[in-house]
Amino acid sequence: MKIRVAIGADHEAIWKIFHEIVAAGDTYALDPEMSREEALAYWFRADARTYVVEENGRVLGTYILKPNQSGHGSHVANAAFMVASYAQGSGVGRTMAEHCLSEARRAGFRAMQFNFVISTNTAALHLWKQLGFDIVGTLPRAFCHPEKGFVDVYLMYRSLLED
Amino acid sequence: MKIRVAIGADHEAIWKIFHEIVAAGDTYALDPEMSREEALAYWFRADARTYVVEENGRVLGTYILKPNQSGHGSHVANAAFMVASYAQGSGVGRTMAEHCLSEARRAGFRAMQFNFVISTNTAALHLWKQLGFDIVGTLPRAFCHPEKGFVDVYLMYRSLLED
Repeated sequence: MKIRVAIGADHEAIWKIFHEIVAAGDTYALDPEMSREEALAYWFRADARTYVVEENGRVLGTYILKPNQSGHGSHVANAAFMVASYAQGSGVGRTMAEHCLSEARRAGFRAMQFNFVISTNTAALHLWKQLGFDIVGTLPRAFCHPEKGFVDVYLMYRSLLED
Repeated sequence: MKIRVAIGADHEAIWKIFHEIVAAGDTYALDPEMSREEALAYWFRADARTYVVEENGRVLGTYILKPNQSGHGSHVANAAFMVASYAQGSGVGRTMAEHCLSEARRAGFRAMQFNFVISTNTAALHLWKQLGFDIVGTLPRAFCHPEKGFVDVYLMYRSLLED
């Protein structure tokens, strides 16, 4: 597996992964009917760095790293991760997350925060805990899960200043 | 005091209030050097409703109401408030907040969440607690206060389903 900065030629692969995940509607608070154009604008926003992980020329996943806030809050990073359905369970998420933490440190961020970890997304929760993230907040019933109805959402945080 | 939806003719008054508050840099995680154009684009963003409070034709404050997330997270509202320095301490903030809670209920939101209440902003904290908001998360040292250095930030939340 190789991780690199995403380029224009990755747009189609990223859109397929993005669309599949957002249309399913159980892990992201994004409009499930977001268009290709809106999705790529969101994933390649000006304040984000966008990466892909590939193997044998095939994109297996993608992530973005950006400041969670502007101005005097910009020392805290935020990130979002998407793994292709055909690559689930093969460590792509963990590989991207470790790369992301390293990139965030290198960029000078002092901490990383996830704003919206849905409590039913046990794979993500498990991974973030293993990587040193703590739950620092609970948003009661802040997500309307397509099958489970209103469920809690967590805020997760970890310092990047020490290991 | 009268509260109404903001119109184009309010842009100059809103920019003056916005700029003063954001340039001070102690209550919002926004770039203190944001331009007029960026500020107005932010305050009149497509998914927000923008209001002003006025008295004798003078704008005393402004607020926005919007979904905190998209898609299956859009039942939770978010809001932001700004009071002109010349109107501080005259109940403008409380008047806007009460109006905002009522508008949010009317728009069908089930809850309201503030993502970034800086712990040193005691006036805001006091008001939100009085209006029924609870601290549901603490972001350690997530804001770099221009005088006080790194300080904690709170997430605050209240249900809109009952009073």
